[in-house]
Amino acid sequence: MKKAIFLVQCPDQKGILAAITSFFASRKFNILHCQQYTDVRENQYFTRIVLDITNMSFTKQQLEEEFKSFADTLDARWSVRYSDTKQRMAILVSKTSHCLYDLLVHLQDGDINCEVPLIISNHPDLEEVAAKFRVPFFCCPILNGDKKAQEKEILALLKKHDIDLVVLARYMQVLSDNFIQQFPEKIINIHHAFLPAFQGGNPYVRAWERGVKMIGATAHYATADLDEGPIIEQDVERITHEADPDDLKRIGKDIERRVLTRAVRAWMDFRIITSGRRTIVFSA
Amino acid sequence: MKKAIFLVQCPDQKGILAAITSFFASRKFNILHCQQYTDVRENQYFTRIVLDITNMSFTKQQLEEEFKSFADTLDARWSVRYSDTKQRMAILVSKTSHCLYDLLVHLQDGDINCEVPLIISNHPDLEEVAAKFRVPFFCCPILNGDKKAQEKEILALLKKHDIDLVVLARYMQVLSDNFIQQFPEKIINIHHAFLPAFQGGNPYVRAWERGVKMIGATAHYATADLDEGPIIEQDVERITHEADPDDLKRIGKDIERRVLTRAVRAWMDFRIITSGRRTIVFSA
Amino acid sequence: MKKAIFLVQCPDQKGILAAITSFFASRKFNILHCQQYTDVRENQYFTRIVLDITNMSFTKQQLEEEFKSFADTLDARWSVRYSDTKQRMAILVSKTSHCLYDLLVHLQDGDINCEVPLIISNHPDLEEVAAKFRVPFFCCPILNGDKKAQEKEILALLKKHDIDLVVLARYMQVLSDNFIQQFPEKIINIHHAFLPAFQGGNPYVRAWERGVKMIGATAHYATADLDEGPIIEQDVERITHEADPDDLKRIGKDIERRVLTRAVRAWMDFRIITSGRRTIVFSA
Amino acid sequence: MKKAIFLVQCPDQKGILAAITSFFASRKFNILHCQQYTDVRENQYFTRIVLDITNMSFTKQQLEEEFKSFADTLDARWSVRYSDTKQRMAILVSKTSHCLYDLLVHLQDGDINCEVPLIISNHPDLEEVAAKFRVPFFCCPILNGDKKAQEKEILALLKKHDIDLVVLARYMQVLSDNFIQQFPEKIINIHHAFLPAFQGGNPYVRAWERGVKMIGATAHYATADLDEGPIIEQDVERITHEADPDDLKRIGKDIERRVLTRAVRAWMDFRIITSGRRTIVFSA
Repeated sequence: MKKAIFLVQCPDQKGILAAITSFFASRKFNILHCQQYTDVRENQYFTRIVLDITNMSFTKQQLEEEFKSFADTLDARWSVRYSDTKQRMAILVSKTSHCLYDLLVHLQDGDINCEVPLIISNHPDLEEVAAKFRVPFFCCPILNGDKKAQEKEILALLKKHDIDLVVLARYMQVLSDNFIQQFPEKIINIHHAFLPAFQGGNPYVRAWERGVKMIGATAHYATADLDEGPIIEQDVERITHEADPDDLKRIGKDIERRVLTRAVRAWMDFRIITSGRRTIVFSA
Repeated sequence: MKKAIFLVQCPDQKGILAAITSFFASRKFNILHCQQYTDVRENQYFTRIVLDITNMSFTKQQLEEEFKSFADTLDARWSVRYSDTKQRMAILVSKTSHCLYDLLVHLQDGDINCEVPLIISNHPDLEEVAAKFRVPFFCCPILNGDKKAQEKEILALLKKHDIDLVVLARYMQVLSDNFIQQFPEKIINIHHAFLPAFQGGNPYVRAWERGVKMIGATAHYATADLDEGPIIEQDVERITHEADPDDLKRIGKDIERRVLTRAVRAWMDFRIITSGRRTIVFSA
Repeated sequence: MKKAIFLVQCPDQKGILAAITSFFASRKFNILHCQQYTDVRENQYFTRIVLDITNMSFTKQQLEEEFKSFADTLDARWSVRYSDTKQRMAILVSKTSHCLYDLLVHLQDGDINCEVPLIISNHPDLEEVAAKFRVPFFCCPILNGDKKAQEKEILALLKKHDIDLVVLARYMQVLSDNFIQQFPEKIINIHHAFLPAFQGGNPYVRAWERGVKMIGATAHYATADLDEGPIIEQDVERITHEADPDDLKRIGKDIERRVLTRAVRAWMDFRIITSGRRTIVFSA
Repeated sequence: MKKAIFLVQCPDQKGILAAITSFFASRKFNILHCQQYTDVRENQYFTRIVLDITNMSFTKQQLEEEFKSFADTLDARWSVRYSDTKQRMAILVSKTSHCLYDLLVHLQDGDINCEVPLIISNHPDLEEVAAKFRVPFFCCPILNGDKKAQEKEILALLKKHDIDLVVLARYMQVLSDNFIQQFPEKIINIHHAFLPAFQGGNPYVRAWERGVKMIGATAHYATADLDEGPIIEQDVERITHEADPDDLKRIGKDIERRVLTRAVRAWMDFRIITSGRRTIVFSA
């Protein structure tokens, strides 16, 4: 079965669900799944609609043009993705492999559905992990402190490989605003703390020093403000006083990888709409 | 704002969402909230629709009659509830008070929305708890082992007080089939184990003996088969070898009460549809 | 069985466990339970020892004097509590009752073991809750903005009733440094956020605005720095984008009360040692 | 630092901790860590003691002989392991790789500390996974239904490679009693359900049919009675009605692998003592 998935956001208004469903029904589409959310505080309506387009009698372009005309009447912001077009993900890493492995294993098992044309790192360490899964590995070190040149190199690679989503799987460099602006809502980062607690560096040591009783991890969109982007997924684990910072780091690795993998999965399923600093993440 | 909430279940079919939304749109209703679920394995479609009926120009009876005609064309099983009609709950207890307190405190805080015209027990012990919250308390002991007579007495009370939902808040008697059949999907029980593990008596001791590493509780509809009714809500807590059966009992009390309270809340929100042995519980 | 519970903290040193156990064994005490923790980073040793003192052949004062001499050789900071001396807890509240109820219900069930000679509030609202459980209720409002006078009144009540632990069960006033210093490690506060995230006011609204995917609560010792005291217990619950600030508040109430109750229970069990900003909380 | 770890179980008796610590103190050992548990119901005492043996002035054999004499006076069952002797683990698999990957990734990161001389499977499918981590892979298929011959082949491999622990990482064959008896408390299995719920085959489909609201996984020692061995670790995840059996399987994979990895880690840390059907798992 071929599917189209629409994500739509617009000011809330009477009869909106009937209008949207009628739009598709009158064109003989079967709505396979429809999820909605109304943000009463902001007066915004959000919906995710999955259509069966297996026997669609017109082109995708026609569908999109007609929907655009309709969406304009609702003052809607919208996007569509098709199940027969695979998304392309680049994974950026530094030296630690736990998140990278988790993504690759889930990809191999078909539990995340996309293509990974390349892995990029500022260090050569994880070349072998990439090789294990036969994914091309590009090492883009920062030479002579020239980060601008390095980012240019990475951006060229991303462009060349038609990348839809950039995943920072414990990539230990802060990206420039310029870089980030080229991938709006298309860069997912994993922060090794339960944001907004412990923004910035060394969160596990700081968590130990503060004596928290649970530690966590946060997957969020990268934005110009470090660790301030919209949160996609978080999780925590209970710890005791017995856990020292090394234990927190070890325990945290398992939290980080499952949080990042879930966030990437939600993105690939086209289940996320961003609304200011918040995300609507429709259930799987 | 006055609301009507419809729960609808029918065989899945093309265009069903559009049909339902059109039904309401053509009658000038604003759909405030619409949640759906399609059970692909059983080919069943489920929806929960919340309407604004504040300025409805016809009667509830008219609305229901028109919806009935429409629903018949879908071969649908459905029900409707109105926000201006408070549901009436009876709480049945025996000797332990933790679940009873939790329900009463949530009711008092407005976190569960219903009326509680009476508390019934087979023992006099919890009379004072009922008195604290000024809820009439009826003690219906089983005299001379005549359980049939006792159930008759309880049924009369429930009928007299127009009870919509019966909550077994650690009521330690098994209800007869006859009793249960008079309240289909209207009796919620709390079992102090993570069903289907440890059905029947003494689950905490058995959990200790089996050496499980987590204990749980289950809220479910009471059916003729003990502990076999459709599950509404479950939760667990991690335990260690240090916890003895008394600790499990104490820890379990906190699980039981939050599980039962959540289930009752879901029922009062009209968020539950039963499908065979499964429940669809729409999110809050 | 009568018990003595020792909490001991000292610089880590070779043979320390043998030394401590020998101290008690040579005096014919049976050690019922012994828990230890070594903080390698700070080179500190912590232990909690439970003794059977049912047939102790000397006085508590003798025991303490002898242990003091011994502890001095270890450069230890220590304290002891006896199972036949009930601790006395004062509960301070303002207008919301959920934490208060939870403490009172657990006390009534014997799941927290102490006496509650009084409840104090700066508002009259919860007088009835106190009355339900027959606990004296004192209303100490802040008159003409004279907080100093009000604190003096409260301090007099605490002194008069020989209070060992002050529990701030959603008491909405910041206590002065002077007040806090009179109860070192004897004031437990519940903050309605997962500290160090959302310190200060309005945490649920700020959590909603930040778009976190879990909310939490934190029980901690009150110190001069607001929300900066050593953390005793934390817990969280998963939320979705559907939860608005009112939902967060409602969900949060259930987290707050279980976190505060667990912390109070740990304190009453004499299971907590403070080490700088961290707490060692031995398992139950 | 070289360490010895003792696990001791004996009838509870007065002065036992002092006796054990004195035994080591009189031989100039520094006790780095001591954990205890008393099972009051069964009157059994359990302890785990970690010694610094870096500068031990006698042989391991001498230490063990002297401890044996001492332990006999306590009627104790005991064992000892040394940090300079790496344990050897064999992983048995069939066709699914998620648990295997998790073990290998944790081993590679040093988060599980042991050697893996070989991976054995009844199918050739996972040869490549083993190759990625350069672990020898042996395919032992069941030929002509002769399971006895296959087990003999596996047992020979385990013997030849001096295997201490056998991990069934979704190995889909039931082992014979004869096989199991040769590795008492040395075979860890992962069952893809929250035991004792859903023992036996197809637990995810049965969980779906029963309509549970959480699914889980259980790591346990393999014993003659299938799925009845002592439980080492369990975990769960919350699911909704939207999850079909395939979703449960996918979600379950993440639970299975973390549960199995934690159990293997506990075994390798020498933190587990079995007591009848229960396990004492000392904290990490």
